[in-house]
Amino acid sequence: MVAKIIVRTNVVLHLSYKGTCFYGWQSQKNLPTIQDALEKAISACGLGPVRLCGSGRTDAGVHALDYVANFLTEKKLPAARIKEALNAHLPDGIRVTRVEKAPAVFHSRYHASSKVYRYLIADRFSPFLENTAWVVRDPVDVKKMKDASSLLLGEKDFSSFQSSGSCIRNAVRTVKSISIHRTHFTLDPSVKIISVEIEATGFLYRMARNMVGLLVEAGRGRLSLAQVSRIIAAKDRRLAPPPAPADGLYLKKVCYPKRKRNE
Amino acid sequence: MVAKIIVRTNVVLHLSYKGTCFYGWQSQKNLPTIQDALEKAISACGLGPVRLCGSGRTDAGVHALDYVANFLTEKKLPAARIKEALNAHLPDGIRVTRVEKAPAVFHSRYHASSKVYRYLIADRFSPFLENTAWVVRDPVDVKKMKDASSLLLGEKDFSSFQSSGSCIRNAVRTVKSISIHRTHFTLDPSVKIISVEIEATGFLYRMARNMVGLLVEAGRGRLSLAQVSRIIAAKDRRLAPPPAPADGLYLKKVCYPKRKRNE
Repeated sequence: MVAKIIVRTNVVLHLSYKGTCFYGWQSQKNLPTIQDALEKAISACGLGPVRLCGSGRTDAGVHALDYVANFLTEKKLPAARIKEALNAHLPDGIRVTRVEKAPAVFHSRYHASSKVYRYLIADRFSPFLENTAWVVRDPVDVKKMKDASSLLLGEKDFSSFQSSGSCIRNAVRTVKSISIHRTHFTLDPSVKIISVEIEATGFLYRMARNMVGLLVEAGRGRLSLAQVSRIIAAKDRRLAPPPAPADGLYLKKVCYPKRKRNE
Repeated sequence: MVAKIIVRTNVVLHLSYKGTCFYGWQSQKNLPTIQDALEKAISACGLGPVRLCGSGRTDAGVHALDYVANFLTEKKLPAARIKEALNAHLPDGIRVTRVEKAPAVFHSRYHASSKVYRYLIADRFSPFLENTAWVVRDPVDVKKMKDASSLLLGEKDFSSFQSSGSCIRNAVRTVKSISIHRTHFTLDPSVKIISVEIEATGFLYRMARNMVGLLVEAGRGRLSLAQVSRIIAAKDRRLAPPPAPADGLYLKKVCYPKRKRNE
């Protein structure tokens, strides 16, 4: 008997998707999810069946600009062909933007060193927004949001920003940067958009939305800096404002140490 | 017998709408149109039945940022209440952004002195575009587009840019300005957008889309300035490139002489 050596390729997918039509990233019985749509497309291309490893869960309605997932396959196909083939089988709401090959040990979730989330807040409703931003009609002061955001930077226990439904005990994370800008909406320039970008070594359950919820309350003038400090220090979710809605949230980037992707 | 004097108010509506779900502005039997949706909403608010005067037809799929329409009604209702009431009865794809009252003689189409159309061209597909731009994957040189656009300015016979299906004989119009910019797409900043804004005293049938079709061919380097000049001078639609698709076109503004709105 001759032993058969199976050589498997670790395929890394970069994805953008509009979360509105999906019940989040993770596979669910009888509900459309991004993971299920992709696994179906991978099978339809003759590369499956596979189980995709995602770089994290995104909630229903949350979008992604550059989500990373990977899977192992024994089939051989050039990366460029995989991209084309998958896109031909995917609905318009999901797009594979890049396909790469990685060392067999690479895992899109375990090896992520940080993530960047982006959040959009619109000052009024527009028919062109379609679930892509949170509409806040009250005046929001960007300067006040920036002042409050500086209190969230660094290594801290972020228990006040972790929604229930998570079993994570250690809530210490490092928020590396928060940048806040005002811009005009390309499709309807009469709409003003505030974008908030948060980079952290990891995000607790709903941490990005809970942070934006607090920053908008600060921007509305409903929370002073002293109150924001107290909320952070309390390590108690019940004292912080409600989360910003899923519509405005985008996973913008997943960062990896260079050696993990290439070693 | 006492003669009854009927006092009617001329109500002016400013609208934004996403054209994707509609078969254009104008009422059609058994097909959803913007005019029909509005007339239905006006009736549902107790201000109708009315026949709306629109400031022009927009084709199926074409969007509007500030379309103007007007109607006469005997009913009394403050302008702010009309806006709220109509929006409560309209689908998300149509929004009343402003309501004003005008002199009885004001007519949103006949009194328009110029219009501004905006056109968006994206350099790649994104799940967030959803029929709001024309995706042109070839490199497009904005400088070449601008050079070609300068040849379209002024009072000219624009027969080369009038699609068939129109019975207008006199094709002389004045293009007052064309501005072209490159920007990033708010919802997905990896997408680059070229915006083209054209102001003219009037637009022939599909004139804006036919002009953008030509400008993009110039930007792709497929038409020299001499060829563009010849196409304009020929006054022959058959010599010009095909129209840009409806998806990327937005009616941005309808301009009126001040006295017409207020006299």
